[in-house]
Amino acid sequence: MKQELKTFFKPKTIAVIGASNNITKIGNAALKNILVSDYECKVHPINPREKYIMGLKCYKKITDVPGEIDLALIAVPAKIVPEIISDCVQKNVHGVIIISSGFSEVGNYELENEIKKRAKGSKMRMLGPNTMGYKNASVNLDASFAFGMPRKGNLALISQSGALGMGMIYLANNEFVGLSKIIGVGNKMDIDDDDLIDYFSQDPETKVIGLYIEGIKNGRGFMNSIKACDKPVLVVKAGRSKAGARATASHTGSMAGSDEIYEAAIKQAGGIRCRDVVELFDMARALAGQPPAQGNRVGIITNGGGLGILLTDACEANGLSIPKLSEKTYKKIDKILPDLIKPNNPVDLSADAGFYRYEVCTRALLEDPNIDGIIVASVHGGYARPREYTGAILKMVRERKLHEEYKKPILGFWVGGKEFEDLVLDLKVAGVPIYPSSWRTVRAMLSLYLEGERIKREKNN
Amino acid sequence: MKQELKTFFKPKTIAVIGASNNITKIGNAALKNILVSDYECKVHPINPREKYIMGLKCYKKITDVPGEIDLALIAVPAKIVPEIISDCVQKNVHGVIIISSGFSEVGNYELENEIKKRAKGSKMRMLGPNTMGYKNASVNLDASFAFGMPRKGNLALISQSGALGMGMIYLANNEFVGLSKIIGVGNKMDIDDDDLIDYFSQDPETKVIGLYIEGIKNGRGFMNSIKACDKPVLVVKAGRSKAGARATASHTGSMAGSDEIYEAAIKQAGGIRCRDVVELFDMARALAGQPPAQGNRVGIITNGGGLGILLTDACEANGLSIPKLSEKTYKKIDKILPDLIKPNNPVDLSADAGFYRYEVCTRALLEDPNIDGIIVASVHGGYARPREYTGAILKMVRERKLHEEYKKPILGFWVGGKEFEDLVLDLKVAGVPIYPSSWRTVRAMLSLYLEGERIKREKNN
Repeated sequence: MKQELKTFFKPKTIAVIGASNNITKIGNAALKNILVSDYECKVHPINPREKYIMGLKCYKKITDVPGEIDLALIAVPAKIVPEIISDCVQKNVHGVIIISSGFSEVGNYELENEIKKRAKGSKMRMLGPNTMGYKNASVNLDASFAFGMPRKGNLALISQSGALGMGMIYLANNEFVGLSKIIGVGNKMDIDDDDLIDYFSQDPETKVIGLYIEGIKNGRGFMNSIKACDKPVLVVKAGRSKAGARATASHTGSMAGSDEIYEAAIKQAGGIRCRDVVELFDMARALAGQPPAQGNRVGIITNGGGLGILLTDACEANGLSIPKLSEKTYKKIDKILPDLIKPNNPVDLSADAGFYRYEVCTRALLEDPNIDGIIVASVHGGYARPREYTGAILKMVRERKLHEEYKKPILGFWVGGKEFEDLVLDLKVAGVPIYPSSWRTVRAMLSLYLEGERIKREKNN
Repeated sequence: MKQELKTFFKPKTIAVIGASNNITKIGNAALKNILVSDYECKVHPINPREKYIMGLKCYKKITDVPGEIDLALIAVPAKIVPEIISDCVQKNVHGVIIISSGFSEVGNYELENEIKKRAKGSKMRMLGPNTMGYKNASVNLDASFAFGMPRKGNLALISQSGALGMGMIYLANNEFVGLSKIIGVGNKMDIDDDDLIDYFSQDPETKVIGLYIEGIKNGRGFMNSIKACDKPVLVVKAGRSKAGARATASHTGSMAGSDEIYEAAIKQAGGIRCRDVVELFDMARALAGQPPAQGNRVGIITNGGGLGILLTDACEANGLSIPKLSEKTYKKIDKILPDLIKPNNPVDLSADAGFYRYEVCTRALLEDPNIDGIIVASVHGGYARPREYTGAILKMVRERKLHEEYKKPILGFWVGGKEFEDLVLDLKVAGVPIYPSSWRTVRAMLSLYLEGERIKREKNN
C-alpha cells in the first residue's frame, strides 16, 4: 500500500537533492523557493560537492541526513536519478518530486522503467519525472522550481504541462482566482491525475478541481475518481484535433486517444470539459463564488438591449433557456420602469438605470421560482451609473441569501473602460464573477447549471 | 437623388435643435460634445426659449439661422420632430441626425412615417431616429450625445444599438483598436447599413468596417454593399437564436429573420461573421495591422508545448491546417535548438527560449512557402524571456517585409502576468495583435485567411 498524499503536501522535513549555490541551476531555484515560503519545516540541501548552501549545512547523500525525511525534491541529471531513488527508498523517504527531465517524454522509457524498478516494493510516492513540482498555497509552501506564489483560494489545479502550469499561476492571479494547490504531474509515473482528484476531493481547502491534460494513462481510474468526487471537476483536454494529438505525442509522449471518447467519458463521469484554460478560470470563479443553478432557466437584466440579445444568443447556443417573466415578476418590475418601457426577459432597464431599478429587478428574479440563475449586464457608458450597478449586486450578495435561501447564482457582464476596473474588482472580491464577454458569462452560467445537475444526480444515487 | 454622405461626416456648419442649458438634457450633451471637439465649424444652438446657450447666440427656429446648414442634430420630444423636419427641408439642410426616440422602436410607426412624408422629395439625408449620432475620430468631430472620443484609427463601426455603440468605444480603447468613425444607425429610416458600407468603402481613413446588427431592412442592398466593398466587413448579427430574435423584436422592433439565411448570405457576400463584439475587435486589430494570409497553413512557435497544442486544436476547429515543416525549414530551426529537442510544427523552442531562437525560427517560417501565417506564443513565466520574445517579433515587423515581401501575418499569443503588459502594448502599438487566449488568436488568424480568400476571389472576377 502506497503512502497517502497528506504528508506529501505538508512535509515537516524536506531535502533538496541537487541543491546548488549556482543561480542558473534548477536545484538553486527549488531550494530558494522552499526557503522563502512562509512555512515551517526543516530543510536539508544535498550535494556531494558543497559544505553549505544558502547558509544551510549540506549533506553528501540523503542517507547521511539524521532523522526522517518527508519529502525530497530531486533536481539532478537524468542518468543518476535511479541511484538517488535507491537512496531515498533506503532512507524511507515518504515522497519524492522528480524535477529532472530526460525520460519517457523524450523517448527514454528505459530510464523511467529503471526508476520504477528501484522504487518497487516501497511505500514511497513519486511525482514526475519532468515536473515543476507543486505550490501549496493553502499553507504557503512552494515546493517547485517555478517563480511566483498564487493567490490563496479554493481552486486546486493539476497540469500536465509545466509551462502551462506556470502560465496558469499568472492567469489565476490576473483573473483574481485563488488557488489551494497547483501541481505539475509531468510524466505521471506514479502520482497520477486520479490520485490527486481523490486527494483534493477530501481537501478542506479545495472547492473546485481543474485539470490541464494532454494524455491519460489510466482511463478507468481517471473517470472513477471524477465520479467519486463530490466537487466540480473542470477538464481542459488538449490534443482534441488530429494535428493537436500529433503535437501532444511529441510534447509529453502521451497518446491523446479519440477526442469523442474523452468528451463522452468526462461528461458521463460528471466532469465539465472546458475549451481552454481561460474558460477553466471563468468557470472556476463562478463555481467557487456562487451557488450552483437548480435548473437551466436564466433571467437577464441589462441597461442596453444589445447586451441582452447577445447574452440570449449565447444562452440558447449553450442549452440554457430564457423563460418569459411570470405575471408576478412582471408586475414587480413594471412598477419601477419608465412609462414607455415594458419588462421582458431580458429585462431592459434602459440606459439611465440606477441602484433602485437594478435592486428591485434582481430581487424580483431571485424570488421568481421560474428563474434558476441571473446575469446582470451593464454598459458602463453614457448615462449609465456603474457604481449603482455594482452596488445593487453587492447588496444582494451581502444579504447572504444567495446560497441558503434563493439557491441561485448571480453573474455580471460588463462593457466599459479601465476607469471602472475598481468597481469590477469589488464584485470579484465579493465572489461575484463578472466577465467582459457575453459568451464567457454564459459559459460560466452553464458550469453552474451542470454542477447543479451533478449534485441532483448524486442525491438520487 | 439623395445627398452623398461626405458633407454629412464633415459639416462646416452644425445646428443643434433642442440645445439646452440644462445639463440633464440630451440637447445639452450634444451641443457640448461638438464644442469640445477639436474640429473647426460654425455651431448654432436652436431653442425657442433661450437667447444664449453656452455663450452662443441661440435661434428660435433653424429657418432663422443665416447662411447654409450642413448638419442638424435634433434632440426634441418625438411629437414635434415632424415639424422640425419640415423646417430643415425648408432650410435646405444637407443632413440631420434625429436623436429623439419614441418612434418605430416603441411601435409608433405612424409618427416615423410622418417624418418620412415631411422629408419626401428633398435631398436631405436623415440618420435615426433613436440614434446616438456619430463620432468622426478621423477629424475629431463628436456629433453624438454619448460621452468619450475613441482613439483614432482605421476601423469604422456601425451600431444598431446605442448602448452597445458606447460600449464599443470603451472596448476599442481597452483593446487598443483605433476607430475612424463610429455611428449609431438607430431605426435606419433613411441612412442604412448599406449606405454606410458604401461610404466607408471609399473613405481613405477606413481600412476595416465593423457592424453590430439586430435586423436588416433591405437584405439585397446590404449584401450588395458588402459584395461591392473592397475592404473587410465584420458583422455581429445579434438575435441568432429564437429567444434572441424575440428579444431583438422588443428592442428595436426589427425582424431578425432566419439566422441560417443571414449566415449564408453574409458569407456569400464576402463578409465575416463574428460571434460577439469582442471577436469583432480581435479580428479588426488583425486586419488593420497585418497582411492577409494567402492560405490556411499556419506555423506555430511556442516556448511551452501546451500552448502549441491548444493553438493546434483551435486551428483545426476553425479549418486552418498545421502543415509539417519542410526539409529546409527543419534544418534551419534544428541548428539553433538544444540537442535533445527536434523541430516540429508547432515548434517548441523550450522554456528558456531567447531572442535568437525566436528570431531564427520566425524568419524560417516567414521564408517557408508552405506556411501562410505565423502565431508566436509565449508563457511569460519561469525561465522565459518575455522581452526577447517581443523583441524578436518587433524586429521582423520593423524590417517592413511582412506586407510586401513575405505577405504573411504574425500574431502573438501570451500567457503572463500584469507585470509584462508594457511589452504586450509594444506589440499592439506596432500593429502586431497579441491575444490572451488560444481561441481568440486563432479566430483572428481565421479572419486574415478569409480576407486573403476574399481578395483572391475579387482578383479573379
